[in-house]
Amino acid sequence: MSSPTIVLHHLEDSRSIRIAWLLEELDVPYEIKVYKRLPSKLAPPELLQVHPLGKSPVIVDNSANPPFAVAESGAIIEYLTEKFPNSLVPARGTQEKVNYTYWLHASEGTLAPPLVMKVIFNETLKNVPFFISPIIGLVFNKISEKVTDPTIERVLAYLESELVFHKYAAGNEFTAADIQLYRTLRNALVYTPQFVGPKTKEWLELIRQRAAFKKVAYLDPEVQK
Amino acid sequence: MSSPTIVLHHLEDSRSIRIAWLLEELDVPYEIKVYKRLPSKLAPPELLQVHPLGKSPVIVDNSANPPFAVAESGAIIEYLTEKFPNSLVPARGTQEKVNYTYWLHASEGTLAPPLVMKVIFNETLKNVPFFISPIIGLVFNKISEKVTDPTIERVLAYLESELVFHKYAAGNEFTAADIQLYRTLRNALVYTPQFVGPKTKEWLELIRQRAAFKKVAYLDPEVQK
Repeated sequence: MSSPTIVLHHLEDSRSIRIAWLLEELDVPYEIKVYKRLPSKLAPPELLQVHPLGKSPVIVDNSANPPFAVAESGAIIEYLTEKFPNSLVPARGTQEKVNYTYWLHASEGTLAPPLVMKVIFNETLKNVPFFISPIIGLVFNKISEKVTDPTIERVLAYLESELVFHKYAAGNEFTAADIQLYRTLRNALVYTPQFVGPKTKEWLELIRQRAAFKKVAYLDPEVQK
Repeated sequence: MSSPTIVLHHLEDSRSIRIAWLLEELDVPYEIKVYKRLPSKLAPPELLQVHPLGKSPVIVDNSANPPFAVAESGAIIEYLTEKFPNSLVPARGTQEKVNYTYWLHASEGTLAPPLVMKVIFNETLKNVPFFISPIIGLVFNKISEKVTDPTIERVLAYLESELVFHKYAAGNEFTAADIQLYRTLRNALVYTPQFVGPKTKEWLELIRQRAAFKKVAYLDPEVQK
C-alpha cells in the first residue's frame, strides 16, 4: 500500500479543521497528524520541524520531489483546488469568482484578526492580577468598541446581506470560500453572537450537514458540545 | 476621451498604495480618488458608498455591466492579475507559484494582524490617562512578548531566509506578492525594526527603485521622509 500523497499537520481545536474538510470534499486520500496544544494554548515546537513558521495548518505534498510543505490556509486552499480537479472554485470571469476570491482573502485578512484580538483580550483578562483587571477590562472594551467590533459587525452584516441573495458565500453553489469562512464564523458565533445574523446561522447549519464536514466534525470541540 | 475602466478608491497613508502600484505595473489606465482619514485615523463614511465595508482599497470596474466593486487587497490583486495579461503571477505548478500564493495570503493573514495590533496598542497608550498608562503599557508589552512579537519575528525570519536564495519574495522574478508584502514590511520596519533582516531591507530598496513604484511613491508618507 502506498502512503497518501498529502499529509495534513493538524493542531487540535484550530483553523486547520478546514483543510481536513477540504480534503474530504476533494476526495483526496490524506494522512492526518494531530498535534496537542501546549498548556499556554500555543502550538507545540514539533510543528517547527514541518515548516519554519511552526504553525498549523500546514500540508506536505509527497508527490513532489523533494516533498514540500505549503503553509497558510488560503494558500493551501488555492494549492489543493488547483492541483485536484473539482467544482469548489467558480469559473473565471464570473461574479461568483469575484465573491469567492473576496471571501477567501477577507476571512483571514479582515474578519479573523479582530476576532483573534478579542480572544487574546479574553485570555489576558483571565491572567492579570485581580486588582488591575477592572481597569484593563475597561481599556480592552474601549478598543473593542472603537476598532474590533465595528469591523466584525460590518463584515458580518455584509455576509448576511449576501446570504439573502444566495445560499452560499459566493453564490448558489458550495465553494471552498465557505470552507475558509467556517472556522472564522464559528468563532464569531462564540465571541460576538450579537453580530451573527439569522441567514448566517442558517448557512452554518447547512454546511455542517455536508457529508464531508461530518467526517471531520470530530476535530471540532464546538460541534461536540 | 473615455473614462478609465478602473477606479481606485484610495485612503490616504494606507495599504491601498499597493493597488495603485499594481495598476502602474500592469500599465492599466485608472482613475484614483483619494479619501482623507478622520481625526480618529479611521476611514471617512464616504467610503461606505463605494462598498458596504467602507474600507480601502476598493476598486470599481466600469467595464462590467453593471459596474461592480472589488474589495480586499488580496482579492483585488487576484482580480486584476487575472483580468489583465501580465508576468506578475508565476506559472501554475511551479515552486514560485506556491511561494507566490503563500505570501499573497500570509502578508495579510499572518503578518499584518500582529503589526496592526501593535499600532492599536501604541495609539491606545497615547490616549489613556497618564496615571494608568504604566500598567496598561505593562499588559500590552506582555501580549507583545507572548503573542504578537513571536509571530512577526518568525515570519520575517522566514522571509529573510528565502531572500538568501532568491531576489524577490516568490523567486528571482518580481511578482504581485512583492506588491502585497510591501506595505506590511514597510510597517514592520517602523514598528519592529529589530526583526527586519538585511536581505529584507535590500529587497525594500530594490522594489522602491522600480519605475512603477516611483509613480505612486507620492502616496507613501514614509518614502517622503
